[in-house]
Amino acid sequence: MINFTGTYTDQYQLAMAQVYFLKGRHERTAIFDYFFRKIPFNGGYAIFAGLEDLLDALENLRFDSQDIAFLRKNGMDPDFLDYLAGFRFTGTIYSSHEGDTVFPTRPVLSVEADIIQAQIIETLLLNILNFQTLIATKASRMRMAAGDRVLIDFGLRRAHGPGGYYASRAAVIGGFNATSNVRAGRDYDIAVAGTMAHSYIQSYDDELTAFRDFAASRSDDCVLLVDTYDTLASGVPHAIRVGLEMKQQGRKLKGIRLDSGDLAYLSKKARQMLDDAGLHDAKIAASNQLDEYLIKSLLDQKAPIDVFGVGTSLVTGQPDAALDGVYKLAFAGGRPRIKISESIEKITLPHRKQVFRVHNDTGLLGADVVALADETEISRMHHPFDPLKSLAVGGYGKKSLLQKVMENGRRLNAPLSVQEITGYCQKRLNELPDEYKRFEYPHIYKIGISDRLKAERDRLINEHKGTEEKEKNR
Amino acid sequence: MINFTGTYTDQYQLAMAQVYFLKGRHERTAIFDYFFRKIPFNGGYAIFAGLEDLLDALENLRFDSQDIAFLRKNGMDPDFLDYLAGFRFTGTIYSSHEGDTVFPTRPVLSVEADIIQAQIIETLLLNILNFQTLIATKASRMRMAAGDRVLIDFGLRRAHGPGGYYASRAAVIGGFNATSNVRAGRDYDIAVAGTMAHSYIQSYDDELTAFRDFAASRSDDCVLLVDTYDTLASGVPHAIRVGLEMKQQGRKLKGIRLDSGDLAYLSKKARQMLDDAGLHDAKIAASNQLDEYLIKSLLDQKAPIDVFGVGTSLVTGQPDAALDGVYKLAFAGGRPRIKISESIEKITLPHRKQVFRVHNDTGLLGADVVALADETEISRMHHPFDPLKSLAVGGYGKKSLLQKVMENGRRLNAPLSVQEITGYCQKRLNELPDEYKRFEYPHIYKIGISDRLKAERDRLINEHKGTEEKEKNR
Repeated sequence: MINFTGTYTDQYQLAMAQVYFLKGRHERTAIFDYFFRKIPFNGGYAIFAGLEDLLDALENLRFDSQDIAFLRKNGMDPDFLDYLAGFRFTGTIYSSHEGDTVFPTRPVLSVEADIIQAQIIETLLLNILNFQTLIATKASRMRMAAGDRVLIDFGLRRAHGPGGYYASRAAVIGGFNATSNVRAGRDYDIAVAGTMAHSYIQSYDDELTAFRDFAASRSDDCVLLVDTYDTLASGVPHAIRVGLEMKQQGRKLKGIRLDSGDLAYLSKKARQMLDDAGLHDAKIAASNQLDEYLIKSLLDQKAPIDVFGVGTSLVTGQPDAALDGVYKLAFAGGRPRIKISESIEKITLPHRKQVFRVHNDTGLLGADVVALADETEISRMHHPFDPLKSLAVGGYGKKSLLQKVMENGRRLNAPLSVQEITGYCQKRLNELPDEYKRFEYPHIYKIGISDRLKAERDRLINEHKGTEEKEKNR
Repeated sequence: MINFTGTYTDQYQLAMAQVYFLKGRHERTAIFDYFFRKIPFNGGYAIFAGLEDLLDALENLRFDSQDIAFLRKNGMDPDFLDYLAGFRFTGTIYSSHEGDTVFPTRPVLSVEADIIQAQIIETLLLNILNFQTLIATKASRMRMAAGDRVLIDFGLRRAHGPGGYYASRAAVIGGFNATSNVRAGRDYDIAVAGTMAHSYIQSYDDELTAFRDFAASRSDDCVLLVDTYDTLASGVPHAIRVGLEMKQQGRKLKGIRLDSGDLAYLSKKARQMLDDAGLHDAKIAASNQLDEYLIKSLLDQKAPIDVFGVGTSLVTGQPDAALDGVYKLAFAGGRPRIKISESIEKITLPHRKQVFRVHNDTGLLGADVVALADETEISRMHHPFDPLKSLAVGGYGKKSLLQKVMENGRRLNAPLSVQEITGYCQKRLNELPDEYKRFEYPHIYKIGISDRLKAERDRLINEHKGTEEKEKNR
């Protein structure tokens, strides 16, 4: 669907890359960590999504002839352009499992590559992972609200252009059952669903004939939109008439869809009318500016809605619109690196690292600990920013979360299907205690750093302070 | 960049299309209007964008073999699949000029095609136009705030996946000077710009060497990022040292970039330091979670910032995230059509229509009037929803806004460049009086309907009421 080329990046990546190339620094290994600082939607967790699309894009990333011609026109160095013409990503990627629950500050994914490659792929990586993680997280909240009702993504028309393609995929990872987006259904092998528009009914001189024609041309998924003229006075009675005709033919009306008005009231009335007519199996679908809070409210009101169609707020991730994921240098030129900042929350974690999820006898402790990659014994985790807080974790089980998924620019495993990722997500969400999943003031999942990582970070901060003092006294 | 195929649509379009096809209704001409109901960002206008991309997509839209195979697997009718395999869009499109100021309720664009074609393209059309119009509108607000300062789009990493590609284009239409998005620069021939990341500085053992290497490899666009360690104690002094070295070589430091901290305070201090060193030509660029309100606030504080880099809020259209554009049936089966609704605001306008912008002697009157397509004399415009409000417009000049841009599925004119569209946008915004462009409670631009259109709409509403009565009495 999307033809990524090497220029799908920020100009500054190429400006930096050219310096590295011309100064002979480009073959130095760098490690960058991808992480975010704030969980979207004031929630207690995020769902990591986009990995398979990223790996696909990286395996195929090239600067094509149009890329090179454009960069030449923009005055880039000819030798550097020759280098780009032969570019392919040959780095290593350590990643969380796609669909896993992830939390702020800790690396979600790490890239180890020569510094030009690592830099050029930054924009692509952030562009794919930030967005899909945002939407999978939003979708999982709607799944939480909807219980076992069916959730269908209707968002393509309000999505951010072709971003809607990824939104449909991420929605299914987060727990949606299907999408209206046929192209996403085709490419990602996800279920597609849809009923009819008001325009269909309007194009007929009467609603009943429109319904009958629709029923005649659909085998087993006839869902009739009942609010074009008057939901309870016209739409539902006509749908019932067609439902009874189908019954006589030995067929079944699958359901009706409400798309306006008071969905709680209308769904109760419509349910009663369908039941009174003996159409107990006909489902009620509802749509119209829904989000997780409205879904929860409708079900709290015992609205007999079986299927929710969600559009704008799902595919745009309203009200947050973006995950604040960043990509920070942890190692370069043979040395660990940190970014110093006036606020400790923005100081980064140096070195190649591993992340462990801590388990006690009964399940999750509710903590991930970040350690140096070669650490095996971790007895204590420290709050990353608050020096007074630490927690003994020596006796607990720990499972490593970052696995090598790509080496020399090649995937190490066959791609996971969206269904497999969805299943993994569901499993990981089930493991997470409810208090982390509630909408209001969720429990805060703990992120800690190991003794050795903390010591390394603090050493680098002090080293930097020393250099600063020397500079000032010079 | 994006390979649209016929399945880039909602499933229900295909479900409806199949009914039309099987019932022999597919060759009937339909007219659909594209319009929106609410101006985003509580603003006084929107900027129409996305048309050229839409026309491109429509000229090339086909169901490829994977599309057909997928739909076959999903149980669609074989004859209908044969029809889709030969599908191409052969309709006519009347559109506002891309880059024009547009307002709620009135058609921004109309599609006239056989009803299957018109229905299948709906999702693609909404997906492209809703998003680009949202972003061009947002960008124009930032342009309004920034005056003649330079605005650069930095948003690709936070954009909604490949939606960022369109965002960069729409940003330039709305008034941005350049983008960091190299691929968008390449394909749309727009200027690209970028400096360096913190990681570049961190990859060196010291900031000064990093700056010197960068300066050495750039010809005339050396902008140094000064906040990696300490903006005023380290970054700016090092940038000045490099700037003076460049001066000795007969070259020029283009500028510095601030990306954190108090941008008003830091820019004033940095300006003073640069001026004291004689580097009067070095510009100051600033970035970090900017939007139109922060840009305005910085300039109100007289921050000496020459260049603003804007990311997330631009490319995601925060806080609105979506334009509520819809696509409604106005004519089908030889008859005008309306959608009845319990609220008059949602009743649609029937028939093929034209929109006129009303001018008086001194410029714009601040009104567009919607009329039937064959009307030439329009003496009065009526508020579309409030029967008590009307305005005499007989003596004023009127310019038609919808032009035929596509016929038989082919563009009638060569594509406009982004620069041409940007120029048109600027001209149209200049014509619009300031009170429509302010951020707080802007003046409301008037939209009216002609006598004949109003009469037609009201006739159809009454006709529908009559049918309803008959149904009830039956």
